[in-house]
Formats: sequence, structure tokens, C-alpha cells
Amino acid sequence: MTKKLVFGHKNPDTDTICSAIVYAELKNKIGDEVEAVRLGEVSGETKYALDYFQVEAPRFVETVANEVDQVILVDHNESQQSADDIDQVQVTEVIDHHRIANFETNGPLFYRAEPVGCTATILTKMFKENKQEISKQTAGLLLSCIISDSLLFKSPTCTNEDVEVAKELASIADVDADSYGLDMLKAGADISGLSTSDLLTLDAKEFTMGESKVEIAQVNTVDTNEVLERKAEIVSEIEATVSNKNLDLFVFVITDILTNDSTTIVIGEKSEAVNKAFEVQLENNQAVLAGVVSRKKQIVPPLSDQLS
Amino acid sequence: MTKKLVFGHKNPDTDTICSAIVYAELKNKIGDEVEAVRLGEVSGETKYALDYFQVEAPRFVETVANEVDQVILVDHNESQQSADDIDQVQVTEVIDHHRIANFETNGPLFYRAEPVGCTATILTKMFKENKQEISKQTAGLLLSCIISDSLLFKSPTCTNEDVEVAKELASIADVDADSYGLDMLKAGADISGLSTSDLLTLDAKEFTMGESKVEIAQVNTVDTNEVLERKAEIVSEIEATVSNKNLDLFVFVITDILTNDSTTIVIGEKSEAVNKAFEVQLENNQAVLAGVVSRKKQIVPPLSDQLS
Repeated sequence: MTKKLVFGHKNPDTDTICSAIVYAELKNKIGDEVEAVRLGEVSGETKYALDYFQVEAPRFVETVANEVDQVILVDHNESQQSADDIDQVQVTEVIDHHRIANFETNGPLFYRAEPVGCTATILTKMFKENKQEISKQTAGLLLSCIISDSLLFKSPTCTNEDVEVAKELASIADVDADSYGLDMLKAGADISGLSTSDLLTLDAKEFTMGESKVEIAQVNTVDTNEVLERKAEIVSEIEATVSNKNLDLFVFVITDILTNDSTTIVIGEKSEAVNKAFEVQLENNQAVLAGVVSRKKQIVPPLSDQLS
Repeated sequence: MTKKLVFGHKNPDTDTICSAIVYAELKNKIGDEVEAVRLGEVSGETKYALDYFQVEAPRFVETVANEVDQVILVDHNESQQSADDIDQVQVTEVIDHHRIANFETNGPLFYRAEPVGCTATILTKMFKENKQEISKQTAGLLLSCIISDSLLFKSPTCTNEDVEVAKELASIADVDADSYGLDMLKAGADISGLSTSDLLTLDAKEFTMGESKVEIAQVNTVDTNEVLERKAEIVSEIEATVSNKNLDLFVFVITDILTNDSTTIVIGEKSEAVNKAFEVQLENNQAVLAGVVSRKKQIVPPLSDQLS
């Protein structure tokens, strides 16, 4: 049995970090040799969850082919969101809840995607299917993933299955999901210590939509104005990123976790696509996206439709 | 609930036809409205299985977007193997056991692939997970899929799981897997009534490998010489296909189901890739591939490696 690495996407969020930890645990329990690693910095929100349940963050790696021949992906599949040298290893498994794109293998693999709110919801089912007990710590990590991806069950990506699984996990983890969850989200929404560059990169993902290269970055906050105070600096940093990466569009989404609305700042030649996709009118590169909190369900599909 | 269509690949084999029938049955049992359809002619082998278990073939369709907005794919995912207008509908589910390539969605979906020998093996598990009983007829169809894709358990694609599931299904279907299986395979290997064009198209699949467009057609036989007697005509038909479809390579594989060896006839600019991939030397466009019976496991991966 050769050792495999398991990891989520770049700019890791709580679901990516904790799903990698938990899936490595499950695979090791059933006899594989798997180590969880991460492709980026641990966010304040994720750190809160790891500290609360006393679990160490996975080891950071820049590349994977120098260590292993085979890898497992969680919480992503698109190659531009994965390790830089992902094309040099064999992907033997994917556990995910996103669309499939820019993903190709030479041979058969184990692929499990479900249209639920969070990778951890699928992993919880897989623990049961493999008749493995979920410890208090593991339940805490899985619950943190669901709370994070669903913004405490308020995102339209959140399904009944996510809610049911979260109830069960909260009971095993012995926490009150609502109060623990709000504390965790607030820890992630505290942007006071973050540089503008952090704001734009901590949860940024790149997409290919039709012929266009699009980057969508999202930040959660409890005070949108605190972010907008830095708008000039944000716009100038985005302009530099668009130029450096040859992007057609950069969409920065500031999501208020208390009101569940977002404000977007948009730069790039394809900005008009945002107006059409969300039926808004950008003014000074800025617009309010009422009720929009989910990149995956409310931003990527309409933008893809416009650009494809 | 809107009606969905479920179908396998073009040039359907037994796994594609019967998996579509059986998955439609499962989905309808759990409350969805799903109809199985097919994208091509029913082969002699599949007809044998359907007649034996008294099940009707699915309805033939050329396109799907004129009927439904959403579809389910079984036994394939690559768009060039699917309905011609697959880009005009939403794929909500895929149940498959092949590599993933040329497949992209705008939103999340249910995707279940496992590296087993046959889609039917996964479907059998899904019946159990959904706590649905498998009828004698359904067990017979599922067993036929496994026998077909595994060449009666002799293909290297066949896993222990396929063998175990097949035993269970044979017991429910009340048939002897070996004798029923050999009869079914022989029904498919009877090429006497087939035109040369049939031989080359009945089980043909197109692949993109690196920059190359490759078509690989396979036919099962109990007498390779019976096929080779038509070689001149076969070569001339392949040359026409290569020219019409702008292919870089056409690999025709004649598999002897009694000896489990194959003979290949190869046409196209990239023919040299076959020599390298299989360490053979084509003579008059022909070579023996000893022990090769599986397109998916023994032909596609080494050819992809050569052409990528």
C-alpha cells in the first residue's frame, strides 16, 4: 500500500481543511495510508474550529508529486484550484459537492459528488456506510464544515440533509450549533488584522467560463462598511491581479453574515456580464447583490451562463 | 417533479442498455419520474439478455433536449460518447465506472463513479442503500451487464466486488452464470449477419487523447479468422472513417472471447503510438495484443500516455 495525500482546494476554507483531516482519518481506519495536507494558509474561522476541538492543522505543501504518486481530492476537482503539479500525479478519489470542470483522468477512479451544501455531509454518510464511529472531535470538525459552508444554515446551498446531519453531529460533538456556529463565523469575519491582499486571496477561486478566465473572491463580515473603507486600495490590488493573471473578470464578494446580503466590487473587461447575470447596474465598479451569499449556487451558475 | 431521461453511451453495449433500464426502475421506485432511452442499436448480445429475461429494449432517441431539460447518464460521461445535444440539457446525475474526461457542468450534481468492472455493480449497491428489493428480472439484467463487461469474469477490469455481486445476482435471477454467460457472449460474438460497417461501429468509442482524436472499436468473436477474411474491406472502411471524421487514429480490436487475446487493425497518422503503447510492431496495419481484452483498462490508458 503506497501512501497517498488528501487535500482540498487552494485558499482553503473550513470545509476543505477539516474534510481533508476527517477523510484521512476514515481512510486510515479502513486500512489505507493517507495523510491530510493543505495548499494554503488556515483562515481565522478554521483556526477557531481546530482550536476549539483541539486538532492540529494539516501540514502545508506547495507541490505533491515530489512526495507521492497518488492523491485524493476533497471539496474541489477543478485543476486550477488544486496543487500546481496535480497533472503529475494520479487522482484515485474525489469527494466533492461542486460542479465538475477542468478535471480529467486517464483511468477509472472513485468519484463521489452530491449536490449537498458541504463535503462533510457526504463524509458523515461515508463513515456510516463504512460502519466507523464518529468521535466527538471528528463530529466537531464535520459540524464546523457544515456551519461554514452554509453560513449557519442560511445559504441556499444548504439542504435538508445538511441540516439533519448537522443536528446529529452537534449532539455527538456536544455543542449548541447556533451559538458555537456564530462564534466561529465571527472569528472568520474579523477582518481587522487582515491586509487588503489577504481579503482578496483568503477565499479566492479561479474559474474558466466559456473562453473567459474569472476569479471570484469572497469575504465574510459583520460590517460591510469596514471593508468598503478600503475600496480604493482594493480596486488597485484587483487591477494588478487582473493584469498579472490575465483575467477577464475579477468579482470580489463581501458577504454580510448577519443580513445575508452581499456587496460586490467588479473589475475586468467582462464586467458587463455581472450586470446581466444579477440584473444589477455596477456603479463605480460596485453593486449590492441582495440575498446572495453562495458563490457556488448564486454566483458561478449565472455568470457561467452569461460567459459560455 | 419534471421527467428526466436516463441513457448510456452511443453504440450501446449490454451494460449501457441494461443499466439505463435498471436505474430508471430504481429512480421511479423512490419517487422520481425517469424514462430509460438508448442512443443506438441493440446488439445481438444485449438482445439475448433482454429476450431471456423478457424485458423490452428502451426507446431509441437521436436527441434529448427536445424532450427534457434534465438527464441522467449511466456508463459514460465523455460528451462525444453521449447524446449529440448533451450540451443543451442539465446533467443531474452520472453513475459510471470510466475515467472522467470531456465532462463539465455549470452546477453541482450527483456523480458516482467507482473503479469497478461494470456500472451494474454500483447500481446493485444503490438498490441496497435505498433498501429496494431486486426482482428476478432486474437481477438477470444486472448480471448480464457484469458478464458482458468482464467477459465472464476474465477481463482485468473485473474486481472481486463484481464477482461477489454477480454470484448474488445469479442466485436471485436463478441462472448458472457460466453457462448463461457463455451463451450470451456467443450471441454477441456471432458476426455472420453483420456488415463490415456494423463490425466497426457497433462498439466504437471516440476519445480525445492529448491533441489527438482517436476512435477505438471492438468486436468479440469466437473465430478471429472469420473477421480477418474481410480485412481488405475493413481497412478501406476505416480509411474512409478516418478521413470523414478527421481522426488521427482508428484502432479496431478483434477480441477472441475463448482465448482472451486480441488482434488489432490500426489506421491513421498516429499509428506509431500503438507500437509504442503495446510494444508491438504493426505489420500490414495489424498486430496481436496478447492477453488484451479491455479497452478501458488495457488500451485507453497506455494509448493516452503515448499521445498526451
